[in-house]
Parts: sequence; C-alpha cells; structure tokens
Amino acid sequence: MSAYKELETRFRRMGALGQATGMLHWDMSVMMPPGGAAARAEQLAVLKVLAHEMLTHPALGELLDKASGEQGLDDWQRANLHEMRRSWLHATAVPAALVEALTKASAASEQVWRLARPAADFKMLLPYMAEVLRLSRETAKVKAARLDLGLYDALLDQYEPGMRSARIDALFGGLAEFLPGFLARAMEAQAKRPPIQKLPGPFPAEKQRALGRQLMQALGFDFAHGRLDESAHPFTGGIPDDVRITTRYDEDDFTRGLMGVLHETGHALYERGLPTRWRLQPVGDARGMALHESQSLLMEMQACRSRGFVHFAAPLMRAAFDGIGPPWDAENVYRLYTRVEPGFIRVDADEVTYPAHVILRYRLERAMIAGDLDLADLPGAWNDGMKALLGITPPDDRLGCLQDIHWPDGAWGYFPTYTLGALAAAQLFQAAKRAEPAIEPGIARGDFRPLLAWLAANVHAKGSRATTDEIMQEATGAKLGDAAFRAHLQSRYIDDRG
Amino acid sequence: MSAYKELETRFRRMGALGQATGMLHWDMSVMMPPGGAAARAEQLAVLKVLAHEMLTHPALGELLDKASGEQGLDDWQRANLHEMRRSWLHATAVPAALVEALTKASAASEQVWRLARPAADFKMLLPYMAEVLRLSRETAKVKAARLDLGLYDALLDQYEPGMRSARIDALFGGLAEFLPGFLARAMEAQAKRPPIQKLPGPFPAEKQRALGRQLMQALGFDFAHGRLDESAHPFTGGIPDDVRITTRYDEDDFTRGLMGVLHETGHALYERGLPTRWRLQPVGDARGMALHESQSLLMEMQACRSRGFVHFAAPLMRAAFDGIGPPWDAENVYRLYTRVEPGFIRVDADEVTYPAHVILRYRLERAMIAGDLDLADLPGAWNDGMKALLGITPPDDRLGCLQDIHWPDGAWGYFPTYTLGALAAAQLFQAAKRAEPAIEPGIARGDFRPLLAWLAANVHAKGSRATTDEIMQEATGAKLGDAAFRAHLQSRYIDDRG
Repeated sequence: MSAYKELETRFRRMGALGQATGMLHWDMSVMMPPGGAAARAEQLAVLKVLAHEMLTHPALGELLDKASGEQGLDDWQRANLHEMRRSWLHATAVPAALVEALTKASAASEQVWRLARPAADFKMLLPYMAEVLRLSRETAKVKAARLDLGLYDALLDQYEPGMRSARIDALFGGLAEFLPGFLARAMEAQAKRPPIQKLPGPFPAEKQRALGRQLMQALGFDFAHGRLDESAHPFTGGIPDDVRITTRYDEDDFTRGLMGVLHETGHALYERGLPTRWRLQPVGDARGMALHESQSLLMEMQACRSRGFVHFAAPLMRAAFDGIGPPWDAENVYRLYTRVEPGFIRVDADEVTYPAHVILRYRLERAMIAGDLDLADLPGAWNDGMKALLGITPPDDRLGCLQDIHWPDGAWGYFPTYTLGALAAAQLFQAAKRAEPAIEPGIARGDFRPLLAWLAANVHAKGSRATTDEIMQEATGAKLGDAAFRAHLQSRYIDDRG
Repeated sequence: MSAYKELETRFRRMGALGQATGMLHWDMSVMMPPGGAAARAEQLAVLKVLAHEMLTHPALGELLDKASGEQGLDDWQRANLHEMRRSWLHATAVPAALVEALTKASAASEQVWRLARPAADFKMLLPYMAEVLRLSRETAKVKAARLDLGLYDALLDQYEPGMRSARIDALFGGLAEFLPGFLARAMEAQAKRPPIQKLPGPFPAEKQRALGRQLMQALGFDFAHGRLDESAHPFTGGIPDDVRITTRYDEDDFTRGLMGVLHETGHALYERGLPTRWRLQPVGDARGMALHESQSLLMEMQACRSRGFVHFAAPLMRAAFDGIGPPWDAENVYRLYTRVEPGFIRVDADEVTYPAHVILRYRLERAMIAGDLDLADLPGAWNDGMKALLGITPPDDRLGCLQDIHWPDGAWGYFPTYTLGALAAAQLFQAAKRAEPAIEPGIARGDFRPLLAWLAANVHAKGSRATTDEIMQEATGAKLGDAAFRAHLQSRYIDDRG
C-alpha cells in the first residue's frame, strides 16, 4: 500500500471516531438524562484520547513525508494530504499533558461560569478563567513555534485555517469606523417608518415545530438525513449524512426561535453538501468556521430576512398560529425581522450591531493572549469598549464580560469567525444573485433550489479542497472583503423605501 | 503499577468504548433517520475493531498471567480478573478474519431475512443463513478447543457463562414432559372461568406513554438515570447510569405494549442496580442473559401479572383511557393478562406455552450446530416439533421457522436463556416473598421498594462477582431449577379460584 493510501485508512478511522464523538455530544445536549453525565464524560474522554493517539502516532510523520513524495496523486488527494498534515501539526505541537490540563481547566471554569454569570460575579470566575487563559497562552506559544505564526494567529488558525490577525485588523478596523455612523443613520431611517407591532401569542411549541419543519423543507433540508430537536442552546450537530439541528421554543415569542431554525438549517445544508466522495477524510470537512458561519448567515440574514422571503413566510406564520390583524401583515413582520437596536447581549444582536460585539471581543482577546491586558482588568475594558462601539454601558458583568461561554470554555481565537462569516455571507449572496437570476424570485416563493444549487457547487462540494480565500475568489471574483456587507446594510437599512 | 491495576486501566477504556457503542446502537434504533445508516455502520465497526484490538493485544495474556500471581487482591478483584480472562479467552479464540466473515455474513443474512420472512420464503434465506451457520460452527469449533467445551456449549457460554447443555437437557426434558399435560389442564380451568372481555379502544399513544411512565416509576425506574422512547422492536439499551428502554404503541391495544414496558423496566432496574464501584469493569457487568431475563420476567410475569398488582393497576388503566363498563373490572383485566393459548409466534406466547417455543429452538439449534440436522430440513423439523410440543402446525414458514431474527443474525446458543430466565424468575420471586413479607402487599399497592431492595441486594449489586448458580444458591438456597416455576404455574393457572 502506498503511504498515501495508508494515511487515508488511518484518517478514515479517526474520522469515524470523530463522528461517533459528534453523535454522543448531540445526545448529551438533547436526550441524555442528568444522571448520565459522568459516564458520558468518560466515554467522550476515551474517544478523544484514542483519536489523539492515532493522530500523534509516531508513524504518522513519516507517512506524511513519504506520501508527499509519491507520484500520481490527483488534486483532491494532494489537498487531502495537506489537510492531514495540518491536523497533525496542530495535534503534535501540544504536549499531551498540556492538552489534558487545558481540557480539565476549561471544564472546571465552564462549571463556575454557569454560577458566576447569573450572579454577575466576575471575581468568582476570575481564578478559573485565569488558569484557562494561562494554559491557552501556553498552547498558543507551542503552536506558534511549530506553525511559525504569531501567538494569536496560532489559535485563530485552529478555527479559520489560513486567516491572520493582520487581515482581521484591517477588516475590523474599517468596520469599527463605519458602523457607529451607519448605526445612527439606520436608527434614524427606522424611526421614520411605521412603528413595529409585536406579534401576539401564545405560540404553542407543537405549532412552532410544524412551521419550523415546513420552512426547513422549503430551504432544502432533507429529513431522511437529519432531525430537528430541542436543546437549551440551539446548535447544529451530527454528521453530513445525519445532520441534527436543535432549537428552543419560547411560547411567548416564536420569531427568534424560528429564525434560529433557519440559521441552523444553513449550517446543516453546508454539512449535507460536503463532498460525498471524501467522507471521513480531512479534505471532506467544512473549510473553516468563517465559511460555516457564512452559510448559516446567508440563509438567516441574507435570504430569510429579505423582503421577498418574509412576504412568502408571513402568511404561513399567520396560518400556523391563527394570527389576526395588522401585526401579521408581511410589512410589519419584515420590519420586525429587520429591526435595529443596540443592546448588551451579542446573541440577541441584529446584523448591524453584531459586528461591534465581535470586534470588542476580538480586540480584548488579542490583548489578553498578547499579555497586554490583565484578565482582572477585563470588566473595565469591556465596558469602555461597549461605550466606544455601541454607546452603551452594561449595568453589570452578567450583561457584560460574563455573557459568553467561549473564554471560560477555552475557545480563544474563535470570536472573529462570526463577523468574517457575516462578510462572506453578504459577498456570496451578492455573487449568487448575479450569477443566477432565478435565485431571488425563487426565495420569494419559498423555492430555495436555485440558491442551494449555486451554494452546493460553489461552496459546499468543495469541502477543504481549497482555502477560504480561493473558494471566495472562485465563487465571487474576489477574496473575502467587506464591500458586499456594507452594500447590503446600505440597501436594507437606509435605501429601503418599503 | 501492578499488572492487575494495568488491566483495570485497559478494561476501563474498553468498557467506556463499549458504552459509547451501546449509546450509538440505541440512537440507531430510536433516533437516527434512515439516511444515517451507512455512516453509523462504519462508526460502529470502527469502535468494535478498536475494542477488539485492545482485548486481543499481545500484552494482555501476559498481564493476566502476572496478575494471577499477585498478592493482596480482594475477592472482587479476583472475580474481576476471572471475568477479564473469560472475555480475553473468548476474544482471542477466534481469528480476526473469522470474526469479520461472521459479522458480514450475519449482516447480509439479516437483510435477506427481512424480505424472506414476510414472503414466507425459506428458500430465499437458505443460502445466506447456511453461510451464517457454517461460520457459527467454525466459531464454535475454535472456541470449543480453546475453552475445552463441546461445540454448542462454547456458543452458549457467550450468553450464559458456565451453563452447559447437559444441564439444559435435563431441565428442558422435564419441562417438555410436564407442559403438554399442564397446558391441557390450564385450558380446561380457563374454560370454566367467565369469558375474557377485550378492552375497547382506541388508546392514544400519548396516554399510553403517560401510563407507562407512571407504572415505571412505581416499579422504581429513575428518570434522572434513564428514558422511555419508541422503536420498532422494544429493547433495553444504554448503560447503568443512563438506561434507555423502548416500546411501541398500538392504538388499538395497549395491553401488550404496557406489559412490554414493565418487562424492559425489569431489565433496566438490573442494569441500574449493578455495583457502582465496578462500573466499566467486567465484574461490574450483568452476570449473564439468564439472570437478565429473570429480572425482566420477574417484573413482568411474576409481579405485574399477579392478581395483587393487576387489581392495583386496573383502575389506573381505566382512568388513563376513560374506560367504562365491565371489561375494565380488575378481575377481567387479570384474566386478560393471564390468558393461556397456544400460538405460532414465540414473542406473543403466554408463560405456559413460551417454554415450548424455546425448547423447540434449543433442540433444533443444537442439532444444526452438531451437524445432525441439515439447514434445508429445518422447516419440516420445526413443524414436527410444534406439533409434538404444542399440538399445532404453522401454515407457512413466516409463522414457523422464519419468525425469529436470532439465527439469521448469528445468535446461535442464545434461545435457552429465555426459559432459564423464566425458571430463575419464579425461583427468585418465591424466595424473595419468603424472605421479605412486605413484598407482596407492597406490590398490591404499587410500592415496589421492598421487592427492589431485595433484588438489589441479592442479584443486582452482585454484578458478575459470582456465577449464576452461586447467586441463585445464595439468594434462594438452591441452584437454578424448575420447581418454583412449576409451582407458580400450578398456583396461577390451576389452583386459582378468583
């Protein structure tokens, strides 16, 4: 067997192990009774250790070197080999003891965070999160040395391969300058439109579920290859051939939950559309978190909050909940779904203010990883940033620096992918509509097949065959940028005349 | 680290891997959309191979030998070591190629069986099942040589450690003589009682679920450590700290489904009661399939079809379904739940005729494994056996030798454990009632705590610490026999005067 084939065999095993882990994570969040937690943690730990042992096996480095010299590999195989080396480099950079220490510290810190957040008690969390930060910086250090990157970039590269902070600085710097002025103008334009009326409930969970499934099917979700369930925090789990998305039903307000379902459906369609031929191989995986988020935001923000789609969906909402009167008019629903309002909480933010939340976190985590900001000074720095970017100051840390799970949980370097995803979504949607005129009218009658066909061909089916920038370049004619996003905001929030 | 401690570490890993496998099997039967099947098969295959590699690792034999000579092991550790060696012997007896061939042949044969059964087409299945039988005999041969057992006993030992066919021959021989005459007398006695009235439906699934949960809780099922769900074929899955049972709701008849839930609850309580200290170690596992089936049948057949329990449960049933009139009277429900009637299908059989179904299969599979019965002659031999044991002849093979999944699926040597379980259930229940007078009145008011406490102490918490016979001896004062079972049948079906 060639070294390359031997590698495929080994990575196929790791891939299957990763899929098993993914399904058990889904079960843990959706099905597992509380008494199963300790046993599940041990199952997951064993699967993780086994996969890590396979990836850091002494033979792997040699096989990678040998395979690089082999003749006759096609482009996909070369790309696969490249992705194999990437995972191997990341995995072998970090000593097992450090991996374990960070895993344990993150678990402990996450637990304390669950108590500290509702209590708005940053001091309670501080020592635990400090340990996570310390170990994350150590991880950054060893990865930076191995990958020849800066500290922060070594972490960022785990989530968005090839992305560098210099690039993000430029993109986010421009946005940070543009957004405050834009926000003021958008609020002003909004104030001139008719007032937004709340949709009157209650909205039984069973009816929300039926409506969600109906719209998921319109978007192209295949229930022979996936499920919709409930969990405390909505997410997309499972595997490409069995994608599991979740939501949460608020019987007083269905609108956020419903849009959440469409958001997760965007993630699910990406997973589902990954190249079948390359299942369980690294090149068959999604490219990175920026493109992943682009697919959910393209569905949620670009397509499903467009006037065309809302005019299609509003009568279905009205019918689902036996809605009566003017609040259910499509234009009111549209205004509801495109409302702009600065707030403290990132996950509740609209698409105009969301980047400010991300830019704040990006700047703070860069400074903390660099050692320029002491964790103890985070609350003050956070509040100053909110004031500067959104003009508001959180009354306490629950609504401030304690709101997200990412830092206590060890996911440093992850935040920027949210806004990179929003930029990519706008850029891809713009290009898709230009390339395929059937897309917009399709969306307006609930037929997403033209859009999905374009996304499948230009994004999903490429897996990790090319870099994010290459995929963006081929699909849109340009690398990832913010022009389309700005144009989109301008068109939806300022130019719109109803 | 001592060799024993090293073994514990290794078996703990295998145990966690086995638990992960169990959860994924549950998901496959209960949650997974059809499109996930191929990927799941690969995940399970990889987990199976990994566990097999760990168990057959070259170092394991040496560690086992070394640990046997170590001083200072307590009784539980010695028993654990014994069980480790047992699994190791079974696993290393069979060449990997044979394991793989049998797995593949069983999967193919099971698929064909799903088509052949509804078509009553034995010839369609014959070549596939013949291959399974051939490979099962080969497996029996290598295991027999390794374990110094007869061919059939080597297979039987996988499911019921220590049980031998000579013992079963004696037990089943006596039953086969006793049962036909007893059945005639039971039918006669039944004919003298008031006719059984069917409970009039329909019975909405939602209400069946609520009633099932209510009675599960009465039996002692803890929903913080388990779930009740639905699947095509009811089963108990999951792990001791997260036991997942399933049922199926027939809206025209709730009675079988409900009793099925109580049956699976018996299995679940056994799993749940296994010794916490020995989680993930072989000695912490259930002792064998006979004791496992004894726990389900003790709940279903002994306790929950007793007059006391039915009189407690009948008003709950009536209330659950807003039942009106005499069919809902407790005595009618009791007669319904203790009705005797010979039939073709094993899984529908009452407790009087069930052993005949098992004895037939036991005799046939012994003959086929021995090479004394050709698979092609199975249908005729089956029908002759049914005639001799139950006095009825199946009109076709769908109602005859094609009804069970076990043989096509490669589970040769499993069948006798059903009836061994029924015998053990009667013997344990008799001993429990004698030892603890609070048990029977408890059951009659839906309080299973006295029964569960006795079972936990005398069966569940022993795990695989002792042999089945030792557990039976300690709990009941005698090895496994059929006296209590016969006495139970006599009392319920003949002596009963209402």
